[in-house]
This record gives sequence, structure tokens and C-alpha cells, in this order.
Amino acid sequence: MAERAFEIGPAEMQHLIDTLGAIGEQPGGGIIRHVYDPAWVAARAQLAEWMRAAGLAVRTDAVGNLFGRLEGESPRTVLTGSHFDTVLLGGRYDGALGVLSALAALRVLGSTAGRPARSLEMVALCEEEDSRFHANFWGTRGILGLIDPAEFDSLRDDAGISIADAMRTVGLAPERLEEAVRTDLDAFVELHIEQGRILADEHMPLGIVDAITGLYRFRTTVEGRTDHAGTTPMDLRRDAFQAAAHIATAMTRVVEQAGRPAVITNGWWDVQPGAWNIVPGLAHFSVDLRHPDEPTKQRLAAEVRQCAEQIAAERSVSVRFDVVSDVLPMGMDPHVKAELQAAAEARGVRWKPMISGAGHDSQVMATRVPTGMLFVPSVEGRSHSAAEFTTAEDAARGATVLATALHRLAFAE
Amino acid sequence: MAERAFEIGPAEMQHLIDTLGAIGEQPGGGIIRHVYDPAWVAARAQLAEWMRAAGLAVRTDAVGNLFGRLEGESPRTVLTGSHFDTVLLGGRYDGALGVLSALAALRVLGSTAGRPARSLEMVALCEEEDSRFHANFWGTRGILGLIDPAEFDSLRDDAGISIADAMRTVGLAPERLEEAVRTDLDAFVELHIEQGRILADEHMPLGIVDAITGLYRFRTTVEGRTDHAGTTPMDLRRDAFQAAAHIATAMTRVVEQAGRPAVITNGWWDVQPGAWNIVPGLAHFSVDLRHPDEPTKQRLAAEVRQCAEQIAAERSVSVRFDVVSDVLPMGMDPHVKAELQAAAEARGVRWKPMISGAGHDSQVMATRVPTGMLFVPSVEGRSHSAAEFTTAEDAARGATVLATALHRLAFAE
Repeated sequence: MAERAFEIGPAEMQHLIDTLGAIGEQPGGGIIRHVYDPAWVAARAQLAEWMRAAGLAVRTDAVGNLFGRLEGESPRTVLTGSHFDTVLLGGRYDGALGVLSALAALRVLGSTAGRPARSLEMVALCEEEDSRFHANFWGTRGILGLIDPAEFDSLRDDAGISIADAMRTVGLAPERLEEAVRTDLDAFVELHIEQGRILADEHMPLGIVDAITGLYRFRTTVEGRTDHAGTTPMDLRRDAFQAAAHIATAMTRVVEQAGRPAVITNGWWDVQPGAWNIVPGLAHFSVDLRHPDEPTKQRLAAEVRQCAEQIAAERSVSVRFDVVSDVLPMGMDPHVKAELQAAAEARGVRWKPMISGAGHDSQVMATRVPTGMLFVPSVEGRSHSAAEFTTAEDAARGATVLATALHRLAFAE
Repeated sequence: MAERAFEIGPAEMQHLIDTLGAIGEQPGGGIIRHVYDPAWVAARAQLAEWMRAAGLAVRTDAVGNLFGRLEGESPRTVLTGSHFDTVLLGGRYDGALGVLSALAALRVLGSTAGRPARSLEMVALCEEEDSRFHANFWGTRGILGLIDPAEFDSLRDDAGISIADAMRTVGLAPERLEEAVRTDLDAFVELHIEQGRILADEHMPLGIVDAITGLYRFRTTVEGRTDHAGTTPMDLRRDAFQAAAHIATAMTRVVEQAGRPAVITNGWWDVQPGAWNIVPGLAHFSVDLRHPDEPTKQRLAAEVRQCAEQIAAERSVSVRFDVVSDVLPMGMDPHVKAELQAAAEARGVRWKPMISGAGHDSQVMATRVPTGMLFVPSVEGRSHSAAEFTTAEDAARGATVLATALHRLAFAE
């Protein structure tokens, strides 16, 4: 059959984006759609309605992931989708666009491509953003059997509600957790907004992800001595903030010299005692270091810590590091990636190999299932805010390439 | 008469320090003696009792300053003292030691030196620390007629109580404000702890203040752009914190190069949005710059602002300054200073000329009355904490020099 038939139009995508994006949208802008809350339930109902209308077999699993399936000759399954929860005051595109592209792709394939060789399924994953519970890819972990039942009680929201109780409130059965586990998956493909400015700035409509970056996070604590800001000469001070500022700028220099795609960020600062007239005695700050090559990530982590220790010694302050995350980079599957590339080329869509600097469900899925990711441009790189924006044309191009790739993955014998 | 008779002993000083220091002391250490609170009332009663026992004529003025007077041949008056309020969880020495040294000095002079030529008076000033109301040298301003009656209602504590109501609660009459004004003062001498580490580190028992430093304070706001910490390459960022850190360290370098007594402190920081995974878009920080020479202070203020603007331009962020204080340096009176020096030399006490890096009642008093200050050592420079400490020997030496100087100022014809 002609691949031309899989064309998905901008108007179709815009309608889906606007309809889903209105669910949980706040009066001042921004969406609150946290897992298991009323807006999340409403969004799931809307998605299920669209999926049923597209002729998909719809079901929800034990943790709240929503599936729509086109049964194929084989029960072995090609899965596509993303998450439909949001951060606090998030945008219309993060996660949602991957779910809606999957919907549009299965809709066009189901109506025009006949019965697939392998089964083709879309998923709206229940949770990725960690915004209500620190649930850490809850939906994907449910599918892969990576949820520890102890988490049902230990994960609690700010109101103290356990995740198990939140699930029961929306009709889910935590005790049926094992039924959520899938062992029939041959591939997973996720379309997502880039959340960065590279594609938009280069007028490149599509990214095909090579790897999801590795992450190394630690809290740095610099301890000096508080002193009176008026009566203590500069040469007698042990100013914790000044030392920390030298450390943070030196760490940044190390990572800048390593070049793209290495990144480092000191986003969180706490300077104590925090008074205008007291020399700071204590400075805490976050270090978020990312690189998609694990040995390079570890080398940079060692270098930034070493340079911090050297500056601390020079300035007679102490420095301490508390590691809070050390996440391995995750390469995408070469075969799935090749199919995504072939699909883009078949549709004449220019693309660029990308490193994902953000975390995604795909990095967990890839630990068990051959996985690939498509990126579409984020205007001005806006992310995790109401200002997220991808043009309808870019969204449609991405969904069209996704449909083409799914056709190659599921319909080929 | 022999100056030897003015000797004040360590045991006498320690008893005064311990007795007053127990009033308002908290179970975990540190004193809370805010103006017009019950501990302040109790401290004032204790001081009044000591003053009466020393044969002084005791009275309270309209704002709550407590005076003890030795009437002289002339009604023209030499005044000595300091404040007896504390910061939150303050120590036993800041302010208090100046009041207690004045008491010890007038006690010994009253009992041994006969009737002075000029009247000699001590004062326990009601408020200096700004810790309950932002009253800004309330006691001294009352004496000098610098209180605006509108302040009685506008100055309010955290509970919303106006300073006038707080005064009435302890039996003071705000409407009698004008009666507090003194026009009979020929000199003011204040003994105070250094609040820095210079004297203690140099084993120097006494400082004689040349000038109280000038102060220039502004809030610096650096605005860049928030971006995703994973997806935004280093070369595409406009990180407000990194720019602010370069600005703060460069400002410090400028002031360090100027040498003592120039000081600069960035004690307060607010980095927004303050998330580990977001490149900071906004950084606010305090700049507290001090120098006792006004043209140098202004030159340094201009230089640090200029270097901030240059760094901001290089890093494509904006920078803004909001000046919150610009206080002139205040030189001490040459004649009073000469008498303090002569007294120290008469007692064989080594002394060092000092710049006061902290603010004091003396800087306000000096605008209308010839004023001088003595500093005694602060062990490890501890200040505004329960860890404040001056040895009894240093306190006694300081009080003895004070008594000698007061004798020279008030008893000489």
C-alpha cells in the first residue's frame, strides 16, 4: 500500500492537542494533571473515547496505564505512546504529544493499512513526572514488573495519601499489580517534544534519539565561618558563599571545555545564615551533571569534585558531596532507530541525531524492550511550563513519521 | 588626685556582666531583650538600682533611656554609655558592656573624685539593635530630637503593635517626646566590644576609634532565562546564577584589591526558580560595601557596579541595582579622641587606632555632639550571638581607661 495514506494533518493534531490540553488547565494558564487526580481521570476518559472511536480495543491495566490495541497476526506487540500526567502548571505538549501522535498514527493505520503482522498498540502511561508521588516512571515500571509492592504504602503525596489509596479512589486494584506486566513487547517507540532549543533554532523538524543522557546529581555543602560583615577584614574571612561561587563557576568551566553534549547546572542554592550583614558560614547547592557516555560522565564527575576540593582547600573552607542520583545513559535500539530513520527519509522529513538531555519513559523501557524515540521541535526550548509550544505542522510531521515507522515495524512480515 | 584611684577590677566587671546578662537569657543560651519587653524592663530596673546605689541621680526620659547623673559645677554635661537592648539571641557584651563600664566608671569617680567641673552622666540607651521595631537608633534619636512623631504609629513589631503602644505598656509617654531632647551635651563617649577579631588576634587590649565606616547597600538582580537543565547546551544558556556568581566574585576582587578597611559582603541570595533541573532565570543578592572614607566608598561602589554591568553584558543577562542604604562615614571628634588616647597612655594600656566596621549609637550622636569610642577585644570576633566574649581583664582595662578619660573630660577646669 502507499505510504502516502498515512499522512496526518496539522488541523487534526491541533484539535487533539487543544482538546486534551484543556483538561486540567488552570484559570491563569498551565495544566495540573497529576496521577489519579480528577483531571487525570477526565483526560483518561477522553483518550479512551478517542481510542474506541478509532476502533482500538481499549483497556486499563492495574496501575492505570491506558492501552488501545490493533490485534495483528502475531500476539507479539509493537507499542507506542508516552505519559499523560503533567508537572505542576505544565504545558500541552510534554508527554501528551506522544500519546496523541500514537492515537493519530493508530487511527490512520487502523483505517487504511489492514491487519498488522505484529499487534500494534498505543499506551497512555499513567505517570512520569514525579509531581504528586515520587513514583519515578510508575507507568513504565508497572509494565516492566519493576514496581516493588512496598512502594504502594511508602509513596505518599503531600497530603499523606498513599499511592495505593489514590489508586483505589479511581477504581484501580493495587493487588493486581502483576497483571500489568507485559512480556509480549517487541518494540517501543515514543515521540516527545525536545524540551530544548536545538531543533527549533536550527529549523530542523525532527530529531531521532541516539541515547538518553546519563545523570549524576549531588548536593555540595561548603562550610566556612560566619563573621560580622562590617568588622571582619576581607583577609580574615572564610566566606562559604565566595568559595561556593568559585567552585560553581570552576565546575561549569570544566564542563564547558568538554563541549556538547555535556551539561552542568547549579539550579538550587541555600546560603546561610542569609543576612545582609553576616558573612555566610554555609552554602548548599545542587550539581546536576549529564553526559550520554558513561565513562565521560564519571570522568567529569571526578573532575568537578576534584576542582571543588582544590578551591575549598585554597580558601580554608570544607566541602562535602552528597550524591542523590547516578543514572546510567541509555542507548536506543539500533534496529528501531534505523526504522525511524528510514521512515523519516521515506517521508522526506529532514532529521538530526539527538541526545536526549531529559529523562523519559523510554530510558526505562529500553532496559527490557528495543526502544526508539522521535523528537519534535520545542519553540524557544520552552518546557514544563504553559509556554510549551510545538507548531501544528511539526506535530503533524512527527506523527506522520511515527505512523510510517510503526507501519514498517508492525506490518512488515 | 591620683588617677590610680580609678582602677576598676575584673571581678567587679564580671559580676556586672553576669548579673545583667542573666536578664532575658534563654534556656538554650542567648539573650532576648528587645525594647519595651519584660526582660528589657527588668534590665532597666537592675541598672537603676545599681545607679541609685552608686549615688547617681536617676531618671528615665520619654523614650525609655535611663540616666544616672553626677551633678557638676556646670550644667554642661559629659555623657557616656551604650544601649541595653539585644538582638534575637544576642550575647552579654554588645551594648551592655558600654552601659556597665559607664556605671563602674561613674561609681568610682563619684566615690573618689569629688564634684566634677562639668556634670557627668551615664546613659543606658533604650534601643539600638532594630530587633523588635525598625527603630534605627531610637534612644539616641530621642536624645537628639531626630524622632519624627509619625514614627510612633508607623513603627510596628511583628505582632502589629505600634511603638507608641509598646511605650505606653511600660509606662512611657510618647506625647512627651520633646522633653527627651538634650541640648546640654558637651561630649559623648561610648565603650563597645569590637565585634571583630582584629584586637583579639593582635593581642591588643584597646582600640580607639577614628571613624565609623560608611555603608552602601544595594540589592542586585540578575535576570537571564530559565531553561531545562538537561536539554539546553551550555553554549545556548543565559544562566542568571552563573552570571551572578561571576559578578559577586569580581566585586569581591575589586574590594580586596583596595585593601583594609574596605569590606564587601554578599550575605543574602535568592536563586529562582531554585530547582535542581532548571537553569536559573533570576538571581537576587545583597551587596554590603563599607569604607570609612566617603570618596573611596563612592568610588568602590561605582567600580563594583561597573564590573557587574560589564559581566552582565558579556553573559547576555540584565543586571539591576536597588540601593537600600547609603550611610556617610562618621569621624570621631579629635578632642575627645585625644583625651581617650591620653587616658590609655596614662594607664599604660596599649591601644590601636580602629575603624568601626559596624554601626553604633556614636555615629548618630556624633552628628550633634563631640563623640569618641573605645573598643575592647571580642574573642574570635564573635558578635550578635551567645558566643560573644570579652575577658574580664580586658573589660576592666577598658572601663578603667573610660573612667580616666571621663575624669579628664569632666573634672578638668
